[in-house]
Amino acid sequence: MSSNSFGRLFKITTYGESHGPGLGVIVDGVPAQIPLSEDDIQFELDRRKPGQSSVTTPRKEKDTVEILSGVFEGVTTGAPISLLIRNQNQRSKDYSKLKDVFRPGHADYVYQTKYGIRDHRGGGRSSGRETVARVAAGAIAKNILKIYGIKVIAYTEQIGHLKINDFIEEEIEKNSVRCPDKAQAKKMVELIESARDDGDSIGGAVCGIIKGCPVGLGDPAFDKLDALLAHAIFSIPTTKGIEFGAGFEVVTMRGSENNDIYISDNKDVKTETNHSGGIQAGISNGEDITLRVAIKPPSSISKSQRTVTKKNNATTLEVHGRHDPCICPRVVPVIESMIAITILDALLIFKAYKQSEK
Amino acid sequence: MSSNSFGRLFKITTYGESHGPGLGVIVDGVPAQIPLSEDDIQFELDRRKPGQSSVTTPRKEKDTVEILSGVFEGVTTGAPISLLIRNQNQRSKDYSKLKDVFRPGHADYVYQTKYGIRDHRGGGRSSGRETVARVAAGAIAKNILKIYGIKVIAYTEQIGHLKINDFIEEEIEKNSVRCPDKAQAKKMVELIESARDDGDSIGGAVCGIIKGCPVGLGDPAFDKLDALLAHAIFSIPTTKGIEFGAGFEVVTMRGSENNDIYISDNKDVKTETNHSGGIQAGISNGEDITLRVAIKPPSSISKSQRTVTKKNNATTLEVHGRHDPCICPRVVPVIESMIAITILDALLIFKAYKQSEK
Amino acid sequence: MSSNSFGRLFKITTYGESHGPGLGVIVDGVPAQIPLSEDDIQFELDRRKPGQSSVTTPRKEKDTVEILSGVFEGVTTGAPISLLIRNQNQRSKDYSKLKDVFRPGHADYVYQTKYGIRDHRGGGRSSGRETVARVAAGAIAKNILKIYGIKVIAYTEQIGHLKINDFIEEEIEKNSVRCPDKAQAKKMVELIESARDDGDSIGGAVCGIIKGCPVGLGDPAFDKLDALLAHAIFSIPTTKGIEFGAGFEVVTMRGSENNDIYISDNKDVKTETNHSGGIQAGISNGEDITLRVAIKPPSSISKSQRTVTKKNNATTLEVHGRHDPCICPRVVPVIESMIAITILDALLIFKAYKQSEK
Amino acid sequence: MSSNSFGRLFKITTYGESHGPGLGVIVDGVPAQIPLSEDDIQFELDRRKPGQSSVTTPRKEKDTVEILSGVFEGVTTGAPISLLIRNQNQRSKDYSKLKDVFRPGHADYVYQTKYGIRDHRGGGRSSGRETVARVAAGAIAKNILKIYGIKVIAYTEQIGHLKINDFIEEEIEKNSVRCPDKAQAKKMVELIESARDDGDSIGGAVCGIIKGCPVGLGDPAFDKLDALLAHAIFSIPTTKGIEFGAGFEVVTMRGSENNDIYISDNKDVKTETNHSGGIQAGISNGEDITLRVAIKPPSSISKSQRTVTKKNNATTLEVHGRHDPCICPRVVPVIESMIAITILDALLIFKAYKQSEK
Repeated sequence: MSSNSFGRLFKITTYGESHGPGLGVIVDGVPAQIPLSEDDIQFELDRRKPGQSSVTTPRKEKDTVEILSGVFEGVTTGAPISLLIRNQNQRSKDYSKLKDVFRPGHADYVYQTKYGIRDHRGGGRSSGRETVARVAAGAIAKNILKIYGIKVIAYTEQIGHLKINDFIEEEIEKNSVRCPDKAQAKKMVELIESARDDGDSIGGAVCGIIKGCPVGLGDPAFDKLDALLAHAIFSIPTTKGIEFGAGFEVVTMRGSENNDIYISDNKDVKTETNHSGGIQAGISNGEDITLRVAIKPPSSISKSQRTVTKKNNATTLEVHGRHDPCICPRVVPVIESMIAITILDALLIFKAYKQSEK
Repeated sequence: MSSNSFGRLFKITTYGESHGPGLGVIVDGVPAQIPLSEDDIQFELDRRKPGQSSVTTPRKEKDTVEILSGVFEGVTTGAPISLLIRNQNQRSKDYSKLKDVFRPGHADYVYQTKYGIRDHRGGGRSSGRETVARVAAGAIAKNILKIYGIKVIAYTEQIGHLKINDFIEEEIEKNSVRCPDKAQAKKMVELIESARDDGDSIGGAVCGIIKGCPVGLGDPAFDKLDALLAHAIFSIPTTKGIEFGAGFEVVTMRGSENNDIYISDNKDVKTETNHSGGIQAGISNGEDITLRVAIKPPSSISKSQRTVTKKNNATTLEVHGRHDPCICPRVVPVIESMIAITILDALLIFKAYKQSEK
Repeated sequence: MSSNSFGRLFKITTYGESHGPGLGVIVDGVPAQIPLSEDDIQFELDRRKPGQSSVTTPRKEKDTVEILSGVFEGVTTGAPISLLIRNQNQRSKDYSKLKDVFRPGHADYVYQTKYGIRDHRGGGRSSGRETVARVAAGAIAKNILKIYGIKVIAYTEQIGHLKINDFIEEEIEKNSVRCPDKAQAKKMVELIESARDDGDSIGGAVCGIIKGCPVGLGDPAFDKLDALLAHAIFSIPTTKGIEFGAGFEVVTMRGSENNDIYISDNKDVKTETNHSGGIQAGISNGEDITLRVAIKPPSSISKSQRTVTKKNNATTLEVHGRHDPCICPRVVPVIESMIAITILDALLIFKAYKQSEK
Repeated sequence: MSSNSFGRLFKITTYGESHGPGLGVIVDGVPAQIPLSEDDIQFELDRRKPGQSSVTTPRKEKDTVEILSGVFEGVTTGAPISLLIRNQNQRSKDYSKLKDVFRPGHADYVYQTKYGIRDHRGGGRSSGRETVARVAAGAIAKNILKIYGIKVIAYTEQIGHLKINDFIEEEIEKNSVRCPDKAQAKKMVELIESARDDGDSIGGAVCGIIKGCPVGLGDPAFDKLDALLAHAIFSIPTTKGIEFGAGFEVVTMRGSENNDIYISDNKDVKTETNHSGGIQAGISNGEDITLRVAIKPPSSISKSQRTVTKKNNATTLEVHGRHDPCICPRVVPVIESMIAITILDALLIFKAYKQSEK
């Protein structure tokens, strides 16, 4: 139950700080006999790494993964898989002046108060860099889900007031904001660059889709599939809201509008609409699972901000350094990873109780 | 990890179906020496019970609680507290015609497919009636939080397009929609009655506020306080979205707008705004914790709806019976309960690691 | 993780005190579509109930079980099963003089110190009566294991210095000590009666055998099958030791004597001896799983004993009342239950990861 | 709940195989502000490392630990601590001939059957080498327990038929068998060397003592302190039995002999004897906690043994290589570690519920 683990049958435990020796994850509950290489994991890490484009931090970190256990002759053995990513491009001196001042929007104040001590170099454990371990674990989960015919996609749907008008899945990885609408992507890049040039940052929305889930994932009562996914997504530092299917639109809807009508396609029971977002009463219904996440603008900005010191004196602060002006492009693989981990975990539990297994 | 339990150090495990002998909960991890009576619990059950007003189902259920264990001479003993609420006003015959047809928006189809068997009487385990057990447990959590100076409030903020313009805490329990704006409450009642008269239902938004939390509740990484609360709230069947603080508004905000500036009031560090909703990096920062929940319109409507049968044939369905045209008024105590349970659980864990305890 | 739950995928949560309204259990993780009636459970409760014979307490408790949830038309639904056994034959006045004195061997002192409050009527939560809930849950587990061809047997192997010389499985339920050796059983009864007549009690050893386990139950590292079983068995209040297979005899053995030689019976790999007790490296190897448990003499004796009061003054105490002079006969179904629960839990987890399930 | 984690509030998760890149552990739930260095951990690893003396394997492994996270400027931060021990002295070729044959007493057969794949190099994940990670974590637990005045000691009490006659705590670390009786230690060394010279191995018994526990650790029902300790100790590969206090002697005792009489020393309630082993009804009573563990003779012996191949054909096998003829001396720090981890975990939970904390 400790806070650095997530999952039940497929469980990840992460460690590491932004400016310590390295970050990593133990992935427990990996079925045996799954092919796995460092390249499989590196592919996903490269999607998350800094320095990819004009809209991410210019920091260059290679984020090279090493498999320390659980794989033998290219195949998983059922033993826990330990993945290590050593830190490389740390400029701890950048942070020395942050030792005694609380950066607005960051964990500085709450960590200092909760623990009485704080690794002030770049956020320490609260750094977004912790998510590198999740993406490494997520790469394994995605690989296994593929075997079961389940696919997880995430993409940037909105930056500031710019929303997508179109959805072309193949476009997502072709532009630096990971947006399925080529035209809007171009405008989004400009909007982010403009915020950056102002010494500021900007928020956005990221959507997730899960395709190919069997009917029956998730459990009644407390471990509803949407509850588990919400837990997973809110564990990502930048999340401020989540909605499934029609989401907050249900506030103004009537039951007759919102209810998804069942129809028969001769083989399966399907729904005519998907306001439920593929989850009914906490259980997957075989439709696409759809969710939307509010991503806050990064807290690190170079504009001058008022704040207080550790001794509770007023001061002002300009956070220079190399920060992301918008985190959506890099949070896409993190959201995919947390979704994949959650779905695989639910799938293993589903298998445990399956009737045909008697 | 089974789906019918929630919490870590303060843990509830619920059971029961809408039309079985009864529903209940075991509350584990209750500190000893807390005064507790059946009246304390009954008070909260009465806030949730059906038949309260014109905007709830006319079903009359007394929902009387019996304490089966864990209390000795009016005081908790540290042993698990078992609470039983027997079902009384069941009309199972109302449901016999629902045996072979899937009600849109309900769990019928996913339960039938997942379990191969389904208690078709009123939703069985998936019924909203399951939340009676949560409110019983929540009453205990609230009582304990009071000792620590923590208060949980929930209220209806919006029904359809009607939003509150005012917030008078004392008004909440004075009107049947549990709305802090007396004038809007009157209009909300009319809107709900109008939906009901159309054989339809309507959605809304419920807000929660937690006052008096110390700095430091919640943990880094996966058990962030907002992640735990999102998990808790999404385990309530009617939830379609959740947001904290500025929530989905951050999508269009810049960092310089969204960051909560730290100020000193000579004693404590405070924030000038509360866009973060009282939680930074997953940890409570001492400000009010604020959240907003999208509540879907109830799926049971008497309007005719298309659907399919168990044998996958098209049919139409009118769900008569005694249903809630809007669940917001009755979900308010459920949301309060899940919040209280989550916060108390986080508080006990916080105590375990507290430095001063060495 | 709270102390009143046991199991992971098949999980029981118990409640209740010896002299409160009742005791019970929520059984979570029961697969759907298993036939289950109150009679199935009552059969096992009757094996545990007091007043069965001359060697148990003469208290008469009917221990009638009521199923409150999870069963519909005689079949499990996948929902949690709640079982309630109301207390009936309580003589609370018997205990009033125990309010301020600590009974040797009982939980009185540690509960008073840990909780600052104590239900002094008959042990409260620490009473052996708590195990009635475990036997109720165990009956369900046994029923399910039968479907998988797994059988759990326990029996009295030793009382005082009297050990069995013979093992006839059919004899076990034919005598009041549940001993597979008819001749020794008779002597054991006399030995227990003699202890009782002295106002004293006597210890013994109970063995467990699990037949029909597939190869592969249990996990490496911390959830070895023997570790889980040891946890389960030590959670029964009377346990003072446990050993598997050769057990403490390995202390004086050499590797060449202790190693179980593998042999082939043309179909399966078998072992020539079973010193490992059917578990190697924490994982079932397909042989019978065998374990032996040290059961302490009941602490409640009518002989005068020195002790201290709550105010830490010396006193003497004679615990009259209706107590078991030896608990082995009644602990047999409790041990069977905890074994069945543990094995079923391991089996469900085994299914989750099974290769063929891809 | 995955098998590679242990503990609730103080939780360890281990990984690694005997012949992979390395082994390690994430220690989660470490309170902040505890001084910690690699030297603190190395000290305990050196007590466990191979090649220490004539009675251990002659393999030379330095087992050097690296702290990857959770410590900042020599002090714990509350973040998870990751410890890595790289493998160095691997001779994988020694094991190539073991690829297709099942070594008696080892995990080979059950792993091959359970996972369908097996890292045949020296046991892989089932190797005793996995315990290096536990000792690293145990060093942290011991350091923290010291702050609370709690001390954990383990020692060799018996090898073959040779038992200790004397207990001088200071002797334990002065001889190569870790025995508190200097004279017997000498004979034990000779007995082990004699078994080794025969190409054989020998068993023994290791005892544990926990001094300074407050009254109240452990919980009623399933997480009794002895149940947790039994789980912990049985997770060590060599354990075949465990007993607390009088242990298996209770089988032949009467209640009047076994009950520990309470006495007053004017300040505290004490017991005259300690048959309960410091734990009553699953809760520490303030006396020394005492336990005794049966340690099997190592399965790797060079004597010829009959066995079968992967294809289920009979064969014979001589396991040469560098093995421990008796594991007691090296299992002592492992047992200490698992005890320390379990006690610290129970202590943190105890703190969470403490009355004075309100």
